[in-house]
This record gives sequence, structure tokens and C-alpha cells, in this order.
Amino acid sequence: MQQNIINTRDLEFQLFELHQVEDFLQYDRYSDHSRETLQAALDLALKVAAEEFAPHARAVDEEEPTFENGRVVMRPEVKKALDVLKETGLLAASQDFERGGMQLPSAVGQMCVGLLKGANVGTQAYAGLTIAAANLILTQGSDEQKQRYAEPMLAGRFFGTMCLTEPHSGSSLGDLRTRAEPAGDGSYRLKGNKIFISAGDHELSENIVHMVLGRLPDAPPGVKGISLFLVPKFLVNEDGSLGERNDVALAGLIHKMGYRGTTSTMLNFGEKDGAVGYLVGEPHNGLAAMFHMMNEARIGVGLGAVMLGYTGYLHALEYARERRQGRPVGNKDPQTPQVPLIEHADIRRMLLTMKAYVEGGLALALQGSRLVDEKKVAKTDEDREMAAGLLDLLTPLIKSWPSQYCLEANSLAIQVHGGYGYTREYPVEQFYRDNRLNPIHEGTHGIQGMDLLGRKVSMAGGRYYQELLRRIAATVEEAKANERLADNAQRLEDAVSQLSEATDIILAVKKEGQVERALANASLYLEAFGHMVVGWLWLRQALVAASALDNGGPQPEAFYRGKLNACDFFSRYELPRVQGLARLLKEVDTAALDVEAESF
Amino acid sequence: MQQNIINTRDLEFQLFELHQVEDFLQYDRYSDHSRETLQAALDLALKVAAEEFAPHARAVDEEEPTFENGRVVMRPEVKKALDVLKETGLLAASQDFERGGMQLPSAVGQMCVGLLKGANVGTQAYAGLTIAAANLILTQGSDEQKQRYAEPMLAGRFFGTMCLTEPHSGSSLGDLRTRAEPAGDGSYRLKGNKIFISAGDHELSENIVHMVLGRLPDAPPGVKGISLFLVPKFLVNEDGSLGERNDVALAGLIHKMGYRGTTSTMLNFGEKDGAVGYLVGEPHNGLAAMFHMMNEARIGVGLGAVMLGYTGYLHALEYARERRQGRPVGNKDPQTPQVPLIEHADIRRMLLTMKAYVEGGLALALQGSRLVDEKKVAKTDEDREMAAGLLDLLTPLIKSWPSQYCLEANSLAIQVHGGYGYTREYPVEQFYRDNRLNPIHEGTHGIQGMDLLGRKVSMAGGRYYQELLRRIAATVEEAKANERLADNAQRLEDAVSQLSEATDIILAVKKEGQVERALANASLYLEAFGHMVVGWLWLRQALVAASALDNGGPQPEAFYRGKLNACDFFSRYELPRVQGLARLLKEVDTAALDVEAESF
Repeated sequence: MQQNIINTRDLEFQLFELHQVEDFLQYDRYSDHSRETLQAALDLALKVAAEEFAPHARAVDEEEPTFENGRVVMRPEVKKALDVLKETGLLAASQDFERGGMQLPSAVGQMCVGLLKGANVGTQAYAGLTIAAANLILTQGSDEQKQRYAEPMLAGRFFGTMCLTEPHSGSSLGDLRTRAEPAGDGSYRLKGNKIFISAGDHELSENIVHMVLGRLPDAPPGVKGISLFLVPKFLVNEDGSLGERNDVALAGLIHKMGYRGTTSTMLNFGEKDGAVGYLVGEPHNGLAAMFHMMNEARIGVGLGAVMLGYTGYLHALEYARERRQGRPVGNKDPQTPQVPLIEHADIRRMLLTMKAYVEGGLALALQGSRLVDEKKVAKTDEDREMAAGLLDLLTPLIKSWPSQYCLEANSLAIQVHGGYGYTREYPVEQFYRDNRLNPIHEGTHGIQGMDLLGRKVSMAGGRYYQELLRRIAATVEEAKANERLADNAQRLEDAVSQLSEATDIILAVKKEGQVERALANASLYLEAFGHMVVGWLWLRQALVAASALDNGGPQPEAFYRGKLNACDFFSRYELPRVQGLARLLKEVDTAALDVEAESF
Repeated sequence: MQQNIINTRDLEFQLFELHQVEDFLQYDRYSDHSRETLQAALDLALKVAAEEFAPHARAVDEEEPTFENGRVVMRPEVKKALDVLKETGLLAASQDFERGGMQLPSAVGQMCVGLLKGANVGTQAYAGLTIAAANLILTQGSDEQKQRYAEPMLAGRFFGTMCLTEPHSGSSLGDLRTRAEPAGDGSYRLKGNKIFISAGDHELSENIVHMVLGRLPDAPPGVKGISLFLVPKFLVNEDGSLGERNDVALAGLIHKMGYRGTTSTMLNFGEKDGAVGYLVGEPHNGLAAMFHMMNEARIGVGLGAVMLGYTGYLHALEYARERRQGRPVGNKDPQTPQVPLIEHADIRRMLLTMKAYVEGGLALALQGSRLVDEKKVAKTDEDREMAAGLLDLLTPLIKSWPSQYCLEANSLAIQVHGGYGYTREYPVEQFYRDNRLNPIHEGTHGIQGMDLLGRKVSMAGGRYYQELLRRIAATVEEAKANERLADNAQRLEDAVSQLSEATDIILAVKKEGQVERALANASLYLEAFGHMVVGWLWLRQALVAASALDNGGPQPEAFYRGKLNACDFFSRYELPRVQGLARLLKEVDTAALDVEAESF
């Protein structure tokens, strides 16, 4: 199968050699699976991605959904692809068998979704949001809600959305105003306006289940007064059949620079008598409920950013191998034939940079998925707590680092294509536009930086942070013993040491009560921390590759040598960024706070 | 006049306080001008930019030119804006009075064009290409060509294009294949295919004058066999009236991610009997002829990148002042009102970063324009040679640095807007798309890096490079004497010292014959060099601002304090990048060259 979505060798390497997903098969939850069934699910997802999703990725970018006579109209390939996906059962890839799921390990389940994202993020979003909304009901909802809504969602009959943002409150959720009044029969009537609701209206599924944040009449102000409601587009009768249209109206479509295949909507709830909604979980506990699924959603965004970067890299690689242009620096003879772009040092440097970013990003996202699995199968409370804590710590990085660096990879993919790269006749410019959403939705770099530095690093007395440093140190020790990797190990150790010092200094400033100063450069801290962790994952990849070269491995030797090259590159070209940022962070500088508003 | 194109205080500061353009008024060439006439030209350009160009910038992005029944059709506002521009005479802003020009200093003339770019780069390109093509005829053409073609171009009756690229040869111009056969009457018949020809067809002007690179029958291979031809869309009679349609056919339109208002075309020359063309300059000297105008064209690209970044910054600043969202870190009370975005540390950091990039980029581009003027008015050959040499040295930076960092400013402008930033309902996403072309057209970063490190730094025995270092050192000494700036001066000195060492090491490696290795990281060298020079320009801006704060200046004090803040920021947050890159460059690392092609 010809596809530029993933290097399947790398996928196998990352899942089975680096992250050793087969380990999980020893646990009861996954005991019905084997390496073959995991591979079969991935093969199926890749086939659907390449054959049903990728072919219309450009078409839905060029022809966005429109709103005509009260209906959302879009290209027919979207429904066809989603119908095929529904038939495969992949929508419920990680769900329990008893819910009709495949009960795959999270790393494999997330990866199946990731392949669809790399192929066509605009069409995939309908499926991704449905999975996310169903997960929310499954973790927070009543048995009746699970049966009446989540199960049809997992089967692909109903689709889902997440309705958080309002026009006047984006990241500041505590300020949202949507009201929910009790109707006396256990249900509620919602009134409010939501914006940026992806997949908020369409005719792809029988029904749409909106997961809506709102306030009860007795809600305290701020984030402690937010409740979660389930608001279907069509009411659902007791027997599961559809009832009347609920009071949810499409107020308009938003037009984005990327993800253009996904309807982005403004929704008005309760313009008439109030939209019928059902409380999910406890009153005033909506934000906590939402955060229960936030880790997986944020890993999903990070993995999506990786996959957009990854497909851009593979397209650039193919182009660099085929396109002949110019001659090597030393060759001045114009009568010799032009050489493939990949022969030029600058092109190779860009390709290697992309490889380091996208394969590093994939290792990072899958590290998150692995921790989700560790949490699920942990044998002791202690193990579960540690897996959960490490996952909490890494989540802001997994969300942000690929959104920054795999977007940069998309920019490099354009650069490798030269002038063709920015034309819409080639796919790489679309990946760049699509990926530009990822640094913002599900929480900006600013939000993630505050989460990491303001909360996660010092959570539980810094236990998870210390454990991460301990694990990195163990990898460094192991790599130091290998002559081929000792220099890279030393570079990582230096970077970690610098950033640890910076962390201590910043936390001391915070403890002194200078909270704003301590957090002023949280975004830069996030970037440095992400680079450090990806440096660690590269060293781990290099250790696995070095061992495979010594002892034999399932992939060709050139593949493993490429991993060593990419680790060299990341250590030498990228880790210095951690040092530079760490030196800056140690100064706990207040340049931005010091500027008067009128001095801009 | 409400506009978000430029901070007029900064424009005045940069032109008249930093770069002291008034100095040039003492020379004969500019003696008819005064501060008032320069200001009047800038005011006029800004008015046209804000009132005629900016209002339809989104419209031409949404509705690209189309090709219908053999004609290019586009929004009528484009012609209207260009007609107004034509009436102002600004097309010939820097041209001699005797050619109907305004004979403005280059810094002011370029800036007039720059304001149009910031307002609407898609519409401006028609004018910009016309000026560039006219300049080429004026410097290289015969008197008859100047009169028959260049003068109607400067008057806006004819528009122009530059036809270099062919489908199989982009950056590798030596491989182009367009053939020109002598017709026996002094003219030539051209046959060949050109691609990426901006403004290649339209009905905005009476005629289009294509400047085409091709080969004569006896041409040697490679770049030494390229000649320059003038090929009009309609032949021009001796009396200046238009004759028959030439054999130049529009083969198709290319669709780009940005600059969508500019037709991007594939042109076929000579599908029938050959397109009538006229040799410009000497046979086989076409590339040298083209390079005569390349410096100004590359400054133009750099300034355009600055201006797109600048308008994005101003839009983000306005949004951050108006949009209320969230509360400062310390305030947990949800009943207090939300604060403007600009109150948040992370938003301020992004705004300050943008300010440092776009105002630094403007200083850099205007430094180039100033050298163009110094070259023109130099009293001695020595002065002229030094101005020309410094301009040659800086040109690759002026082209590339803003294309990288002001594009990054555009990305930050999206980030400040949050989810609104990536919607097409706000302008900042378009600037980001428009600006993504600038790192490629007129020579990629890779090409510019090779030019800087492979040629410019060591040109004339390194004379110009040494002079630049000497000037930077002088600024450092001056700033060290000022307590407020001493730390920033020290940081610049350290960066210069590191990069100078790297330069010496790399040139030694090159001298040993390891040319490919020496130039492998030329793009990173270019980036570091650009940051060093912008750091120097920030220190110079700070010196001027500090002096104005001490002794009084024409701008409000808050403005000057902002310059000091931005210099602090650039010195502390950005100059460390030079150090990091310099340490890497000193290793003359070959990571990219070492990877086997099959290891990707």
C-alpha cells in the first residue's frame, strides 16, 4: 500500500521495541490480544486512513461545509469515509469488549486514531470528538446515559461534541454564562451561546450528543460553579428511538485556516423554551468531570500534531528523493546531470530535523499512551498513582511540544519543496495550516506552561517530577556505558542539570510569594522541559537501536543507524536550546512584566 | 487615520533618529527634498495603503484571480487601488526626476512600497514587480528600451514581470532551457516554459513587459550562457502605440497559500512562431544583469516580511488591549471583572517578542536601504566600495532574517488572538500565510546561507565583514559607557565573540578544501549572523532612545522606554541563540551529511 502517513518500520519500532506495548498483553484486560491482533488493528486503521480518508483531504479543504436552508452541506466523501470507519469498529478501539469495543491497549488505540489524523484531520475530527464525548459519558455518566447515548456513539450512530467555549470566555472557563434551570422532571433547560464547537452540526450521523458546560441556578461563581450536561440534537426516547428536535440552533459557521473539513460552529442553546439537557455527574463538578478526560484529549491533540508533522516529513522525503535540482557544492560542471535534492547538505539537514521532531514527538505521545495503560493495569495503588502522576506531569508537554515542533517540521516540509511547497497543488501547505490550530485548541502553550510550572512540577511534593528525573538519569547512566552514545548522554545530563537548577530557583521565587514573576516565562519553561524529555526519548531510541545493531532486530540495519543519526542530531543541534533557555530561566527575568502598556 | 500598518512614531524614529536619513539631503541628488517632502511622501503612501489597499486585502485572498475564456478575471478593487497608486507617482518614488520620478532617498522610497505591502501584499506585488522590472531596464537596457518600456512602466501604463524559473529548474538557474533565436532584424524569437511568474497575466495595465532569462544558440552551458530578454505581451510600435499580441500564452494559474491576490502563472513563450524578444545588455550576461538589481529586490522581500509581521503585531496589540479574558495569576476571585489580555505575563512576553522582531527587522531592512543611498551619494570610490560591500554582506540577512522571525511574529499574533486567531474572520491568519512565501521566493534560506558563508563573509579578503565587526564593536563600546545599557552591550559582545570564533574555524575548514562540510550548516550560520546584527541594531536603537530620554526627543518618553525594554528583551532572550548556534557551528558538525539516504 502506497502511503505517506507513517513509516511503518518506525511505528513498529516505537510501539514494540521502544515502548514494549506487548508487555501489557500479560494483563487480564488485554489477555485476548496478541501481537498479531494489535498489528491487525493498526493495519486496518492504516488501510482506512490511506484509502478512505487521505484521498479527499484536499477536497474538504477546498470545499468547506456550507450552511444552506438550515442544513449543513459538505462533500459526500466525508460521510462515506466515516461510514467505513464505523463498520471497522475502530471508533471503540480502546473501549471495553462489553461496550462493543476492541479493548486495545491505549497506545495502539490512540495510534489507530492518529493514523486517521495524519491522513485527513478534517474528517477524522468528527470521529475523534465522538470518542471523546463518549468517553466522558462512560466515565461520568449514569448507566442509563451510557446505554442511551454512549453506546450508539461508540457504534457510530450518534456523533458527539464538546461545548466549552463562549464568545466572551475562551480559556477563562470560570466566566462562562450558559444557564441550566431544573425542569422538575430530573432534566434541565439550557440557555446560552457556545462558540468554536467543532462538528457542532452536520448530517453525518442520526444524532449529535453535545457535552455542554453550564451553570445551575445555585452555582457558586467561577470554576466551582460549572456543571456538565448532555444535550442531544434530537431527544432520545426510552427505547432508543429518536424523538423531537431539541432547542439547539446553528447560529453560524466559523471559517478556519485549517481543519477546514470540520464544521466549526456557533450554537445557540435554548432560543425558544430552553434546550433539554441532562446533568452528567455531580452538580458544580463539571470542570473536574471534563478534566477526567482531558489527559487523553490532550494526548490526542499532541499525537495529531505529530501525525501532521509526520505526513509532511514523508511527503518532503519523497519529493527530495525524486526531484532533481542543482549539483553538490564541489561540482561546477553544468553539463553533469542535476542531482536529487536529498544530495544537498541543507536539504538533508532539514530532513534530519524533521525526522528528529516527528519521530521524537511520536515517542513522546506514545509515552503518554503507555502511562494511560500502566494506570489501567497497575497491580498496586502505588503503581497506579505513580503512572497517573507521571501522566499528569507529561500531559502539558505531550499537548504542546508536538504542536510547536511538528508544526516547525511542517514548515520545513514546505521549505524542502521550494516554491512548489507553498502552492495548493502540493499537500504540505495544508498540513502547515491544519497544524497551526494545535498550539491553541485544548489549551494554549501559555495555559500548558502554567499547568506544568505552576502545578505539575511541584504536585505531590514534586514526587512525579523527581521520578521523571530519576528515570532520565538511569537512561543517561546506561547510555554512558555505550561508547557510541556516551557523548549524547553527557549532553542530555548537562541539559537536565541546567534545567533542574532553573526549576529549583523558580520554585524558590514562587515560594517567596512572587508568583507572577515565577510564572512569567512558564511557556519557555514548557518548551525547555519538552526538549529535555524528547532528548531523553531520543537517547532511549538510540539505546534500543544500538542494541538491535549489536544483537539483531526486526528492522533493517540502515533503519537503526538512522535512529542513531537522529539521536546525534537532537543531542547536538537541539539540546543546546535547553541550556540556553535554562540559563535565561534561572534569571527569573521580568522583561515582559516591566514594559508599560503604553510603551508597546 | 485609523490604521494597523505601522506605528508612525516608530517609523519616524527609525528613519530620522536611528538611520538619520536627513543626512542625505545635503547631497546634490536629494537637495530638492526636505524633511517635510520626505514626510509628505510617507504620509501619502500610508494614506493610499490604508484607504485603497488594506480594505480589500481579505477580499482578494478569498476570491483569487481566475482564468475565464482566455482572460484573467479578478476583483475590481485591485485595479482601482493600483490606478490610485499610479496617480500618486509613488511607483517611481526612488527614480530620477528626469524619468518622472520623485528621486526620494532609497530608505524612504522602499518604505513607501513597504507600507503598501503591509496593507495588502497581494495587490502591491503588481506594482512591486513593475518597479523591479523597470529598474532592470533602466540599469541594463538601451536608451530606446528605457524610453519605450521603462518610462511607461514607471508611469503605471505598463506593468512588469520577472521570468526566471522553469518547471525543472528553480534555484538552479544554470539549468534553464528557454531558447532565443536571432530573427535577423536585431530581435529574437523565444521558445520556453516559465513557471511561478507572479503577475504574469492580467488586464490591470495596457501592456505587460516580461523580463525573461533564456539562452542564445551559441550559449555556453550553465550560468555563463544565460541572457536577458525583454518580451512584451503586446508589441510596441516606434511611436509607443501598441501593436499585435506577442506569442506569450497563459498556460495556467498556480494557487498559493498566500499572496493569493497576485496571479501566479505558468507562461508558454513561443508556442506558435516564437515570442518576439529583445536582448537587454550583453549576450550571456543575463544573470549578472539580473543580480544588479537583486540587492534591492531582496531588501524588498525582507522589508515585505517585516511589514507583514508588523501589521500582525499591531493587530495583536489592539486585540490584547481590548479583549478581556481571565484574571492575573494572583487573583482567584471570579467575581472581579476579567482583565484585558495585555495584563497577562505570557501575552506581554509574546507582544514584546513581536515588537523585538518587527522593529528589529525594520531597522535591519532600513539599514540596507541606507547603504543603497550611501552607495549612490558616496564622494569617494573607497566610500562607494565600502557601502556596496557592506550592502552585499548584509543582503542575505535582510532577505532571510525577517522572513524567519517576522513570520514567527505572525504566528505569535495568532497565538495572542487564541482561537479567533486561526479563523478567517480575523486578519492575522492571512498575514501568516502571506508571509510563509518570503522564506522561499527570491532565494531560500539555504541559498542565502551559502551566499553569506560561502561568498560574502570572505569577499575582498573579509574586508566588509571586518568593517561590520568594527562598527558593532564601536556600538558596544559606546553602550558599555552607559550604565543602563552596559549589560546588554556585554551580552552582544559575548555573542559577537563566539560567532567570530565560529567564523574563523569554519573558514579554516573551507580553506583546507572541506567545502561541503564547511557549508553544511550555512543556514544556521545565517540565522546566528542575522540575530547578531539585529542585536547590534537593537543596541543602537537603545542608545538613541537613552539619549532622547536624557536630552529630550520628538517622541513621548514611554515610546523611548519601550525601545529600552525591547533591547533588554532581545539581549537577554534572543542573543543567547547566537551563542548556542555559535557553539554548534564551531564543531563544524556533519550530522546531516553522515546520514545514509536509506536511513531516513
